[in-house]
Amino acid sequence: MIKMSFKNVVHTWVKTCSRSKSKYQPFSSLFDSADTLKKQQESESKPAFSLETYMTQKIKSINEALDAAVSLKDKEPRELHEAMRYSLLPGGKRVCPLFCIASCELVGGTESMAMPAACAIEMIHDAALIQDDLPCMDNAHLRRGKPTTHKAFGEAVAILAFDGLLTLAFEHIALCTPTTVPPARIVRGIGELARCIGAQGVVAGQVFDVISQRESNVTLEHLEYVHLHKTAAILEGTVVLGAMLGGGSDEEVEKIRSFARYVGWVFR
Amino acid sequence: MIKMSFKNVVHTWVKTCSRSKSKYQPFSSLFDSADTLKKQQESESKPAFSLETYMTQKIKSINEALDAAVSLKDKEPRELHEAMRYSLLPGGKRVCPLFCIASCELVGGTESMAMPAACAIEMIHDAALIQDDLPCMDNAHLRRGKPTTHKAFGEAVAILAFDGLLTLAFEHIALCTPTTVPPARIVRGIGELARCIGAQGVVAGQVFDVISQRESNVTLEHLEYVHLHKTAAILEGTVVLGAMLGGGSDEEVEKIRSFARYVGWVFR
Repeated sequence: MIKMSFKNVVHTWVKTCSRSKSKYQPFSSLFDSADTLKKQQESESKPAFSLETYMTQKIKSINEALDAAVSLKDKEPRELHEAMRYSLLPGGKRVCPLFCIASCELVGGTESMAMPAACAIEMIHDAALIQDDLPCMDNAHLRRGKPTTHKAFGEAVAILAFDGLLTLAFEHIALCTPTTVPPARIVRGIGELARCIGAQGVVAGQVFDVISQRESNVTLEHLEYVHLHKTAAILEGTVVLGAMLGGGSDEEVEKIRSFARYVGWVFR
Repeated sequence: MIKMSFKNVVHTWVKTCSRSKSKYQPFSSLFDSADTLKKQQESESKPAFSLETYMTQKIKSINEALDAAVSLKDKEPRELHEAMRYSLLPGGKRVCPLFCIASCELVGGTESMAMPAACAIEMIHDAALIQDDLPCMDNAHLRRGKPTTHKAFGEAVAILAFDGLLTLAFEHIALCTPTTVPPARIVRGIGELARCIGAQGVVAGQVFDVISQRESNVTLEHLEYVHLHKTAAILEGTVVLGAMLGGGSDEEVEKIRSFARYVGWVFR
């Protein structure tokens, strides 16, 4: 029941997003879709879907899976693994992993099919935060109310914790995704994720961000590029990966991709 | 012919390496195997295998494939993609990609099956060099006779070029490996590679290296750990990936793994 209602929420959004052929549509379409959704929910006789309950349950499962994924048991060097855990647990909102699982469920997959991928997304997200905070980037001293990773462990270990989390993300998807997911889906999903977070996605956005900090005359177009790549691209990789692992058709995957670009934009 | 003779070279090594159940055997076994090989070659009536010709041909193909993989065509931001090309081309010895292809051929695969993986290995290797050279690591000013990436492009862009190369490596294996390789082999290979270069492999070695630079009393055991993880682990990931893509059996893969651990150790 929860899954079906959540599907309605996302489906309505996705339908609205994919109506036009242009890549980015007016934001008002999102409000139109919210109205449609409200009417749809009113006409339903089924018990109301609680987004809060859904999110609480999923975030609990995600946090448990993350804790197990970066266990310290028998791991050396201790300092590296402690830095990875420090950056990953606890404190994150887990928005991206939640979207990854929801996207997988939306196309008929299960939570377990997407859980390693969801954890991987969080690892990538938190690795990016370590890097954003570095002295040569934002030179931040605090993150989520505690010292940034390079302040707590030193710059060299922080950079290596970034590497550890990023590579663990790919290892985790490849080795921990259950056998109920055909390997072809996993390969496609890994390729898509890497493309979205790489030099034509998130990394491109970060470089434009660095460039914009050097320049005195930053255009709106430049800022749009930064946000679309830094935020929308990771969300795109997240939900497209979830949908691919869940067995979504090409059409479903593309609709979900449009949805992610909207949400990524609005989120920023 | 060339392939068969190369197989003999590696097979002899691998056989020697895998005779014992212990992880690391005396180096003398390598010299024993070289003698065996020499006798074997003398008794063969086939034309002599030219390692030089084999290497020259493969390195030419690898360099062409790398050039295409980081083309600048339609890529933005230009600065990022130029930094990635600058770090990757030209100058490297291409030892790891060569081993990746040879390992694939050894178990019956073809060059084309392993070429995207071979390029990925070089991307990972060169990304690691960008990072090694950073001010908070070795603070190197020159690499392969030219300014290090952070000297040429600034520290922030160098760090992001590292990200770009590392993620492109996984994207490249996932999206460019030919369809003649079953997806299950690709998934297994990606998992293995990520494990070898990650927080229990190369990254672990790098952290131990950082720690050893802080300490006044570094033991031989500590140094062994650094070299086994920094050098042997990437070579292990390289040849195991090649063998998996080429369709090697579990037994063949494990023999090749032993071989890599030896060579990685000696190489250092």
